[in-house]
Amino acid sequence: MSDTTDLRMPSVDPASWTCPAPLYDQSRVVMGHGGGGALSAELVRDVFAPAFGGETLAQLGDAAALSLGGLRLAFSTDSFVVRPLFFPGGSIGDLAVNGTVNDLAMSGARASYLSCGFILEEGVELDTVARVADALGAAARAAGVEVATGDTKVVEAGHGDGIFINTAGIGLIPAGVDLRPQRVVPGDVVIVSGPIGVHGVAIMSVREGLEFGVEIESDCAALGPLVDAMLAVTPDLHVLRDPTRGGLGAALNELATASGTGVVITEREVPIPPAVANACAVLGLDPMYVANEGKLVAFVPRRHADAVLEAMRAHPLGAEARIIGEAVADHPGMVVARTGLGGTRVVDLPIGEQLPRIC
Amino acid sequence: MSDTTDLRMPSVDPASWTCPAPLYDQSRVVMGHGGGGALSAELVRDVFAPAFGGETLAQLGDAAALSLGGLRLAFSTDSFVVRPLFFPGGSIGDLAVNGTVNDLAMSGARASYLSCGFILEEGVELDTVARVADALGAAARAAGVEVATGDTKVVEAGHGDGIFINTAGIGLIPAGVDLRPQRVVPGDVVIVSGPIGVHGVAIMSVREGLEFGVEIESDCAALGPLVDAMLAVTPDLHVLRDPTRGGLGAALNELATASGTGVVITEREVPIPPAVANACAVLGLDPMYVANEGKLVAFVPRRHADAVLEAMRAHPLGAEARIIGEAVADHPGMVVARTGLGGTRVVDLPIGEQLPRIC
Repeated sequence: MSDTTDLRMPSVDPASWTCPAPLYDQSRVVMGHGGGGALSAELVRDVFAPAFGGETLAQLGDAAALSLGGLRLAFSTDSFVVRPLFFPGGSIGDLAVNGTVNDLAMSGARASYLSCGFILEEGVELDTVARVADALGAAARAAGVEVATGDTKVVEAGHGDGIFINTAGIGLIPAGVDLRPQRVVPGDVVIVSGPIGVHGVAIMSVREGLEFGVEIESDCAALGPLVDAMLAVTPDLHVLRDPTRGGLGAALNELATASGTGVVITEREVPIPPAVANACAVLGLDPMYVANEGKLVAFVPRRHADAVLEAMRAHPLGAEARIIGEAVADHPGMVVARTGLGGTRVVDLPIGEQLPRIC
Repeated sequence: MSDTTDLRMPSVDPASWTCPAPLYDQSRVVMGHGGGGALSAELVRDVFAPAFGGETLAQLGDAAALSLGGLRLAFSTDSFVVRPLFFPGGSIGDLAVNGTVNDLAMSGARASYLSCGFILEEGVELDTVARVADALGAAARAAGVEVATGDTKVVEAGHGDGIFINTAGIGLIPAGVDLRPQRVVPGDVVIVSGPIGVHGVAIMSVREGLEFGVEIESDCAALGPLVDAMLAVTPDLHVLRDPTRGGLGAALNELATASGTGVVITEREVPIPPAVANACAVLGLDPMYVANEGKLVAFVPRRHADAVLEAMRAHPLGAEARIIGEAVADHPGMVVARTGLGGTRVVDLPIGEQLPRIC
């Protein structure tokens, strides 16, 4: 289909992306390699995947689905380097818990245990470390997960940035639940659990000292209970993804690519709070690519969509859930938005992250 | 016993340690907080343990022993900040695998899956990242563990130090195996699997450009097969520990404290290679506190000691295993060395780490 080909230009498919006139030294790591977009995908595809091999990593889910001793386990890790350490609505401690338990939740698993590794910079105040640890502990109790093992390293002043945290989590995947991008089929309904772009704008506003009339608080939250409510309707959801780095735009692209289906969303159905829209207009950001930390996007079989939506709306974390689009057989691997003017535009995979170090 | 009291002065028991004339700002993190000694223990006891709570963390094993879905799992994490990234005998990639699989091995578990989180500094060469990833992948294959899930973050130049890696690992604890410090009883025989101090001296010599006549290579290795050989003799080993940060001295102190028994070692039985002894003399280090990355110390019931030692010596990783001492009812919680001159000296818990960033 030549239409499709045209729509894909300029493509940022990581398999074909090249920069005709490099603006940076392509032999070195740039911020975008950590942004969850095309550069991150390239790093995984060209460096990590060949080096590590293995079937599980190749699934590229938010969490790995493992078989161990006859059990189906979800296993996931994230490092957290957010600046500042405390922000409206949360802290690096909250992110360190919720980021990892949400990755597990996207496989249907409730997190049972977390590991926690701190990399501290010499000179950071012990009181700050304690405040972060308290926030992490409180978030873990709220999410019903136990911090079971930990590690602390210290690097010299000027070789770190206050506090970095890594968490890894494990949990059981319930019987009958099989959430994978590969299960998406044309006709699936795309549901987002609530307003997008809040976390990234909250971080940016406090970092840059910007005010937008109202304080925007991060939506950082543990999504396990919402996922449980959805799975209670049917274990036959197809895929869940939490649109963190790279935002909803990156998440939809990853799922389209991995499933080999197209995705169409209706732009005006995507819930964007006015404060986020205003902030993005001022900052020159596209809310579709701004990170969330307490939202999920679901691809649900059409016959279950209304019941799942209803169950989501009955839960505080999904009160503003919306159907925003569907999976289609056309333009496989591509995400297209119907605009308010009746046209369409391609929602590409971002190259990097508009807002570095938001998690 | 007043003798014992005298021996303990000056004490660095983390429960009582205070610095009468602080040489540094005690409200801030110092390098020693990451050193695996008294300052690290203080940080865990006063900050992390109260914040996180939980039964499992309080066990303070190298790995947490968990119950999940009816299985007994070992779960452990370590971050790696070693400088330089490549050193004689290994790299940060080898350490990132062996450090975590060895922590699991100390609970008797063979590592099944690893997570891997990279924190990259903007500007580091992609070729360096690839070399580290290749080393990590090769070490994982050698250890028989699969890298199942990963994450990459990037921080701005000057806010990191090239490459930091966190790994977490999970594995099954075999039936009948219960390795815990609390199982140590007076009469247990203390066995070390080979010469100590090699890793720390290898790092220091390359970092400082020192030469000691012979190149000292890190002993970095995955100990799972050696542990399997020991458990094949009897599952009734009491405790295993890999003496990494803080060296053999810190490991013995941790086990003495956690078990509430005393430990006596015979100094001349502790295997210290001449090159390590020479380097330590030049650098003013005590080899008892220098880190190892491919050694273990075992407390074994006396009736099994000879057979376990024989099995260890039959394995390449334990060819130079030695009995170095025993657990005793006297001086509970304290480690004492019999010196070559027929006297005794206390082997205290080090306050910090003599060699920062050796893993």
